[in-house]
Amino acid sequence: MDIDDLLATRTEQMEASAIREILHAASSPGVTSLAGGLPADDSFPLSIMQDLMATVLRRYGGRALQYDASEGFEPLREALVPHLRARGITTRAEEIVVFTGSQGVLDAIGKVLISPGDVVAVEAPTYLGALQAFNPYEPRYVEIETDDEGLVPESLDAVLAANRVKFVYLVPTFQNPTGRTLSLERRRRVAQILQRHDTLLVEDDPYSDLRYSGEPLPPIHSLAPDHVVYISTLSKTFAPGLRIGFCIAPEALRRWLVIARQGVDLHTSTLGQALAAEYVSGGHLERQLPSIIDLYRPRQQAMLDALERHLPEGFRWTRPEGGMFVWVRGPAGLDTEALNRQVLERGVAFVPGKYFYVNQEEGLSTLRMNFTAADPDAIDRAVGIIGVTITESVARY
Amino acid sequence: MDIDDLLATRTEQMEASAIREILHAASSPGVTSLAGGLPADDSFPLSIMQDLMATVLRRYGGRALQYDASEGFEPLREALVPHLRARGITTRAEEIVVFTGSQGVLDAIGKVLISPGDVVAVEAPTYLGALQAFNPYEPRYVEIETDDEGLVPESLDAVLAANRVKFVYLVPTFQNPTGRTLSLERRRRVAQILQRHDTLLVEDDPYSDLRYSGEPLPPIHSLAPDHVVYISTLSKTFAPGLRIGFCIAPEALRRWLVIARQGVDLHTSTLGQALAAEYVSGGHLERQLPSIIDLYRPRQQAMLDALERHLPEGFRWTRPEGGMFVWVRGPAGLDTEALNRQVLERGVAFVPGKYFYVNQEEGLSTLRMNFTAADPDAIDRAVGIIGVTITESVARY
Repeated sequence: MDIDDLLATRTEQMEASAIREILHAASSPGVTSLAGGLPADDSFPLSIMQDLMATVLRRYGGRALQYDASEGFEPLREALVPHLRARGITTRAEEIVVFTGSQGVLDAIGKVLISPGDVVAVEAPTYLGALQAFNPYEPRYVEIETDDEGLVPESLDAVLAANRVKFVYLVPTFQNPTGRTLSLERRRRVAQILQRHDTLLVEDDPYSDLRYSGEPLPPIHSLAPDHVVYISTLSKTFAPGLRIGFCIAPEALRRWLVIARQGVDLHTSTLGQALAAEYVSGGHLERQLPSIIDLYRPRQQAMLDALERHLPEGFRWTRPEGGMFVWVRGPAGLDTEALNRQVLERGVAFVPGKYFYVNQEEGLSTLRMNFTAADPDAIDRAVGIIGVTITESVARY
Repeated sequence: MDIDDLLATRTEQMEASAIREILHAASSPGVTSLAGGLPADDSFPLSIMQDLMATVLRRYGGRALQYDASEGFEPLREALVPHLRARGITTRAEEIVVFTGSQGVLDAIGKVLISPGDVVAVEAPTYLGALQAFNPYEPRYVEIETDDEGLVPESLDAVLAANRVKFVYLVPTFQNPTGRTLSLERRRRVAQILQRHDTLLVEDDPYSDLRYSGEPLPPIHSLAPDHVVYISTLSKTFAPGLRIGFCIAPEALRRWLVIARQGVDLHTSTLGQALAAEYVSGGHLERQLPSIIDLYRPRQQAMLDALERHLPEGFRWTRPEGGMFVWVRGPAGLDTEALNRQVLERGVAFVPGKYFYVNQEEGLSTLRMNFTAADPDAIDRAVGIIGVTITESVARY
């Protein structure tokens, strides 16, 4: 039978095969990938998993394998309260909803809030996974300008004045893809602008625990709690394979998010949540975090050094204080999609930056470079190959 | 801020608070619940979980905690091939996609196929969770008649002739909520009707492993593979808390289901899938299944005996050969929602059957009774209380 005849109209919005193919090619054996956003396997607390499982079975028994509440496993929600307090967020367990990855929160937000044609305001560039979550609900996007310090508050103000915006989506700390972090001053201005326009912010904060230098900054949620859905995850500080994300949302919205997610997956894996509850409440996350940072800090330094060493004139890049990515902008006219194909033949991959823009033309000369999944030597070699390939291409003109 | 002003138009379709409140009340301490669809905690292979975890960590190491393919964890997809072959389905690992529960498959199907106003054909009554998955995509439902042997093929034929149906949704074996099973003869006729009308069937098959008597029947998928998306789950034979469901779908549809789910949760918990892979491939599922059946068979018998003993004249019920539910229809005029409130005060709960109908008026006098989550004595007492409450109510008229 002809399936194409059966597809919903929204399904047209969901095509994403180019980026899927890039990530698929990047994961081929023999390729040094700076493309994905994978934590290093070495960051995982493999040595304690067996003990965590024993604790979970002893403490929860069959409850760890049973259906559970759509809101989340109560001991995990409880464990997240002090975890979040240490990060500047005052909340109660009832205000936290656990989802299947922060992707699950983004899907539920899109489902509950976006009618076809509604306006969602995003940074340029923004996180691709958020666009993939929202696209099936057929929003119209407006872009907010960014500079070297992240989102430009005046641009946010202008966008909110000129459009009826359903919500703003931001990654204010070590942004994916740029690594940029919004200053405290800008956070305060963003909070004021949101309050003045009475506009909802979706604050996505997966990376702030991965800080290699500088001082922690408060989430925007702490500055305007009534106007912010705060999203975070244990994917970067425990294990992404467990698919544990969570949000704190105003009560009136939270109720709908729970109803929406019930239709999507009923609830997040109870066993995964129980392991996460013991990982957080047992102090393992706080103990593991310094070793994750010690693993990633030299990788990021290797990336910055390699870019300095290997890229020709005319390239600029961010120097983030944390996170997983460095963002590179080449000279106008550079086609990083073609470049990615060329370096792939030499066993290296990155993500062409255009995929992080609503208007892809804005990003033709940009590259997102991940530094967490390869060791320093591999990073240096891979960036070297990218540098040589650029130089050769330029020489051919 | 006023969240209600921000809600998408589709969100109106998602209200389900009445049934949520019923299930919430049913889970209160001291209540004997015949309401949910929970497996017994005693059915879980708790004693082998620690060893399964050790095997997973030894065999897969960090891979079990890392991001994985949206299609599913390769060793689980491989393990499901012989598992499905033993159940009459010939398939290859590439044709299987693992989701976060079969709920995840239903959501992805709704998202990819249903445009607002599209027609979905369902049994009357049908599985509530499927309606909850599809509703946000704003379908129009048409009902297919059922009798004591399940779906009436002539009614399906008439519905497909009279409507442009996007897909048909069926639970052909030990249906939720009725426990009814479609005969082989009817399965063949359904397959022919689907092929003649070139219509897609979503065949949801969570319960067929839970057979207490009689002979297994082939899934409709095996009779018309090009016209069927087959869905199953490990929730009833391993553990629902792991949220492992899967589907087999025609290639052209499968591709879209994978893209859709990528925006929803990226992939299902890798650790959960790795545990499931070892559970299935290590023969544990086949070894556990007889003890699950030995646990449930007397519970079902206790339910049937108790209905016979305690219900007054004018009640009829199904006598399924397996599954988790018995379906009771009382005399016209009975209001099972009011009855449920009355018995709840006496510490018993069931689900009023009307929630399983698109047109709830059709089910006012029906009850769905689960028998897997309570032991035989508790079932007898609970049905006794329901019987007494009915008799007292009638006496009051």
